[in-house]
Amino acid sequence: MTDEIRRTIAQWADALRAKDIDATMAAYAPGVVTFSLAPPLAQRGADRAGMQEWFDTWAKGLQYDVSELEITATEDVAYAHSLNYLAGTKTDGQRNGLWFRATLCLRKINGSWKIVHEHTSVPFYMDGSVRAAVDLKP
Amino acid sequence: MTDEIRRTIAQWADALRAKDIDATMAAYAPGVVTFSLAPPLAQRGADRAGMQEWFDTWAKGLQYDVSELEITATEDVAYAHSLNYLAGTKTDGQRNGLWFRATLCLRKINGSWKIVHEHTSVPFYMDGSVRAAVDLKP
Repeated sequence: MTDEIRRTIAQWADALRAKDIDATMAAYAPGVVTFSLAPPLAQRGADRAGMQEWFDTWAKGLQYDVSELEITATEDVAYAHSLNYLAGTKTDGQRNGLWFRATLCLRKINGSWKIVHEHTSVPFYMDGSVRAAVDLKP
Repeated sequence: MTDEIRRTIAQWADALRAKDIDATMAAYAPGVVTFSLAPPLAQRGADRAGMQEWFDTWAKGLQYDVSELEITATEDVAYAHSLNYLAGTKTDGQRNGLWFRATLCLRKINGSWKIVHEHTSVPFYMDGSVRAAVDLKP
C-alpha cells in the first residue's frame, strides 16, 4: 500500500510541476477538505478555478520537491507527511521559492487512492511580528 | 473506533486546558512528528520541556475549543482534522485568541490511541506582506 501511495504522490507532484490542471484535480476526492497555504482557514471541495488561477501566476513549469516523505497505509486509509519545496518564476519575472510542510490523508475510492484531506503550511514567528516563516529550511 | 478517537481528542483538549503536562505528553507516541504553529518546520519526538515552557507563558488555564472535527478511523490507524480556537491570558496580562487548523494522525499502540503526527497552522496572506493570518474565523 505504501508503494501505491508513494506513486500517487509522485504522479500528483508531476502534475503540479507541469501545471496540468486535469491531472492535478484528479488526485482529489470530491469532498476534499483543504487547509491551504493561503486563506481561508478551510475549504471543502476541490477548487479547480482557484488552482487554474494560481497556475496562471507562474510563467513556466514549477519546481516541486517532496522530501522526508513518511507514509502510513492500511488497505483503504492512509496518511503521509513531508517537507516540500516549491519554486518557480512568476509572470512578472520574480523568482519565488518556499519550503512548507504537507500532510495528506487519502482513501482508496473505487480502486484509486484519492486525497480526502490536504494540509499545507509554514509556521509563523511568535516574536510579535506575526510574520509567516517563509525563509525556513529543513 | 471513531468514538475512541473522539474521546482521545477530548481528553487531550482537557489536558491542554488544564496545562497538565503529564496528560498532554501522554497523548503522543514517542516518535511523533510535529508541524507546529511556531518554527521550526518540523520536529521529531515530543518536546516536554518546550511544552512546559509554553504552558508557563499563560497566566491561568487555557480556552481550547475543537470545532468541525471530522474523524476517519480503521482498527489501528486514524486521522482527524478540525478548526480549533485557543485563547487565554499571558503572564504579562495580555489576552490572546487564535483560530487555527489542526490535523492529527493517530495509531493504536498497545491498545491506546496515540498521536504520531500533529500539524497545526494558520495560513498566510499572499499580498506581499507575508503576514500570518491570525485574525481569521471559520
